[in-house]
Amino acid sequence: MTSAVRHTYSNDAALRSRAGRVLPNGMYGHQNAASLPPGFPQFFERGQGCRIWDSDGNEYIDFLCSYGPIVLGHQHPRVEAAAARQQALADCQNAPSARIVELAELLVAKTPLADWAIFCKNGSDATMLCMVIARAATGRGKVLVAQGAYHGAGPLLTPRATGGVTPQDRANILTYSYNDLASVEAGVEAAGDDLAAIIATPFRHDAPADLVPVDPGFALGLRAICDRTGAALILDDVRAGFRFHLGGSWEPIGVRPDLVAYSKAIANGYPLAAVLGRDSLRDGAGRIYATGSFWFAAVPMAAALATIAALEEEDAIARMVQAGLLLCDGLRRQAAAHDLVVTVSGPPQMPYMTFASDTGLERMTVFAGEAAQRGVYLHPRHNWFMSAALREEEIATALERTDEAFAGVRRRFGGS
Amino acid sequence: MTSAVRHTYSNDAALRSRAGRVLPNGMYGHQNAASLPPGFPQFFERGQGCRIWDSDGNEYIDFLCSYGPIVLGHQHPRVEAAAARQQALADCQNAPSARIVELAELLVAKTPLADWAIFCKNGSDATMLCMVIARAATGRGKVLVAQGAYHGAGPLLTPRATGGVTPQDRANILTYSYNDLASVEAGVEAAGDDLAAIIATPFRHDAPADLVPVDPGFALGLRAICDRTGAALILDDVRAGFRFHLGGSWEPIGVRPDLVAYSKAIANGYPLAAVLGRDSLRDGAGRIYATGSFWFAAVPMAAALATIAALEEEDAIARMVQAGLLLCDGLRRQAAAHDLVVTVSGPPQMPYMTFASDTGLERMTVFAGEAAQRGVYLHPRHNWFMSAALREEEIATALERTDEAFAGVRRRFGGS
Repeated sequence: MTSAVRHTYSNDAALRSRAGRVLPNGMYGHQNAASLPPGFPQFFERGQGCRIWDSDGNEYIDFLCSYGPIVLGHQHPRVEAAAARQQALADCQNAPSARIVELAELLVAKTPLADWAIFCKNGSDATMLCMVIARAATGRGKVLVAQGAYHGAGPLLTPRATGGVTPQDRANILTYSYNDLASVEAGVEAAGDDLAAIIATPFRHDAPADLVPVDPGFALGLRAICDRTGAALILDDVRAGFRFHLGGSWEPIGVRPDLVAYSKAIANGYPLAAVLGRDSLRDGAGRIYATGSFWFAAVPMAAALATIAALEEEDAIARMVQAGLLLCDGLRRQAAAHDLVVTVSGPPQMPYMTFASDTGLERMTVFAGEAAQRGVYLHPRHNWFMSAALREEEIATALERTDEAFAGVRRRFGGS
Repeated sequence: MTSAVRHTYSNDAALRSRAGRVLPNGMYGHQNAASLPPGFPQFFERGQGCRIWDSDGNEYIDFLCSYGPIVLGHQHPRVEAAAARQQALADCQNAPSARIVELAELLVAKTPLADWAIFCKNGSDATMLCMVIARAATGRGKVLVAQGAYHGAGPLLTPRATGGVTPQDRANILTYSYNDLASVEAGVEAAGDDLAAIIATPFRHDAPADLVPVDPGFALGLRAICDRTGAALILDDVRAGFRFHLGGSWEPIGVRPDLVAYSKAIANGYPLAAVLGRDSLRDGAGRIYATGSFWFAAVPMAAALATIAALEEEDAIARMVQAGLLLCDGLRRQAAAHDLVVTVSGPPQMPYMTFASDTGLERMTVFAGEAAQRGVYLHPRHNWFMSAALREEEIATALERTDEAFAGVRRRFGGS
């Protein structure tokens, strides 16, 4: 039986106080813990395999994986060795290293749709580049985006009408409803002869909501619409990429986009993103101007080469599926035993859970906070991510603790 | 006497051939060597101090410093040690490490104008964030940008009308002429009551052109215009930052902007960018949504802490000035001895050279190619960067070789 001693967070509180003076609101972006329940630290210090430690030394089993990048586990020996070997030679130079050729060749070989690759740094770079390349290739401006879908934080694609975004930034964005071809057709009609691209995630993973699988007929329909109109079909595989199929997350359903955006898990935490594309988009890709001081750095590319090799050789996707199934089945059983109604949605490698009648996520907030205080990191509002480092014993330990978290929800809110 | 044996480039040619199949045009962005003269490799393998080696093992004295990031020299021991220590703990986690607080505190302490900091990954992120923050803070949309100035490659700020940029992307950009306050006033009038910001580089470093110092009266005038109109004054210190003054490149002339964008040299090659701002912009910065999977990674922040400490303790700026003065004086003397008329412009830490009557840069192309073939890396169309690793002996070696490069220009084009 593992310890269920609750964590303390004094270092974290002191750091939050200092951060409040020198960072706007004390923190910003998706890693801002201000709105997470007590039990979620704002600062982390160390990671190893599927375990992470915060600045107070509290240990957690990690089911968020840095919001996706850590796919093999923290400090994966093969990836760390490859990165360290490259770092000892060079990272950011006057020109790329041979790693950029090796990695582009590897990705093109693994990805049936791809004939070429471009590298950048973050997912937002990659989705924006896909849009710009589609515009350059088609000479058109409008892009169809699913209502509520997150394709990056930049003004040109963000789904959030936050400060500093102008109407002009959004003038070329039209929306559709995910899995609803009629809404896509309406958007195509609205775009007239100016439709440059349709962008979609491989399944619906808008936060916070139950995850929704793609209807294969919907994906095929998008392909047909793009073939008919000459618009580019863009798959935003930033969040899901490398956890489903190494050839792209729509390979299992046989739908091949024209452009794919990858980032997050591509290098097990090293900063890298990629756009892969078909030959028909190569000229368009060659006519844009896109660059960044650190885009061609060799260390993340060496890490990506090692990550992709390890994903294959360690049968990592199957191991993530196995870990996710154990976790999801366990959560469903425990909820039922506590007379609580939950929906565990999404593929096992990237699941998410909601409680019935939990409109303000009050139950989920208590559940996640109780789990975090006991050393299980399950985000209350964002889908979770499995890593290949999770073994049966860690899932069992996590489930002992989530059982107590369910008990806390039951105590607070009663049964279903 | 050093060897003047010319380099060979067979590995580079083989890699270029492979790259031609899997990267659009074989390469893209600012590190594309396709338009550089023979002698400039497309691929690099290693760096150490002020020396770099390409994929054929050819050695160069580096006067480009990865287009700026390498400010202390390649593989600086203190920076590498700090990065390796951090890497052994964690880089990209579910939340930042304490390094984000330490680095924000350090930058705020060093930078007189700054009350807070935000971190991101590339210079383009930082300049775009400055623009978005200014819009959020003012509720206005228009941004005044110097004609021809480079503030990043994204569609919202790029000076290049390349493929994929829509008219809407540029609808809120108005231009002025650098060092010309009347043109700024005309832009202010055109913006009416919708002026969110004026952005400027600390001096004029548009490529390829002679570098032009800022007229202090111009900078003071921008400050006064922003004070009068309520627009934010943004200093784009991405390229020049950390080579002039650790408090920001306009500290020596006593003009303090409202927002500063930093990147490139902030972490001696590790990928990081920052926006620093005044308290008056803190609320605006807190109202935007900006984030990236790798923005909060700890290793580049640990490297930045070590870089800034080393810049101070090694008196690095003075050493870069000294190296640059030796190089620039030497080039001027050599040109005159060869009866060639050159302009060596810019501050010694970031100089650039042009030949008289060289409208197509034909002379500069021959000069830079001859220098590169002899192991001196001086970009023909982009300003150069000194590092603190350059010692008198390397400048002397470089000058022996540039003397031969000047002779090559003389042979090809005759004297002035």
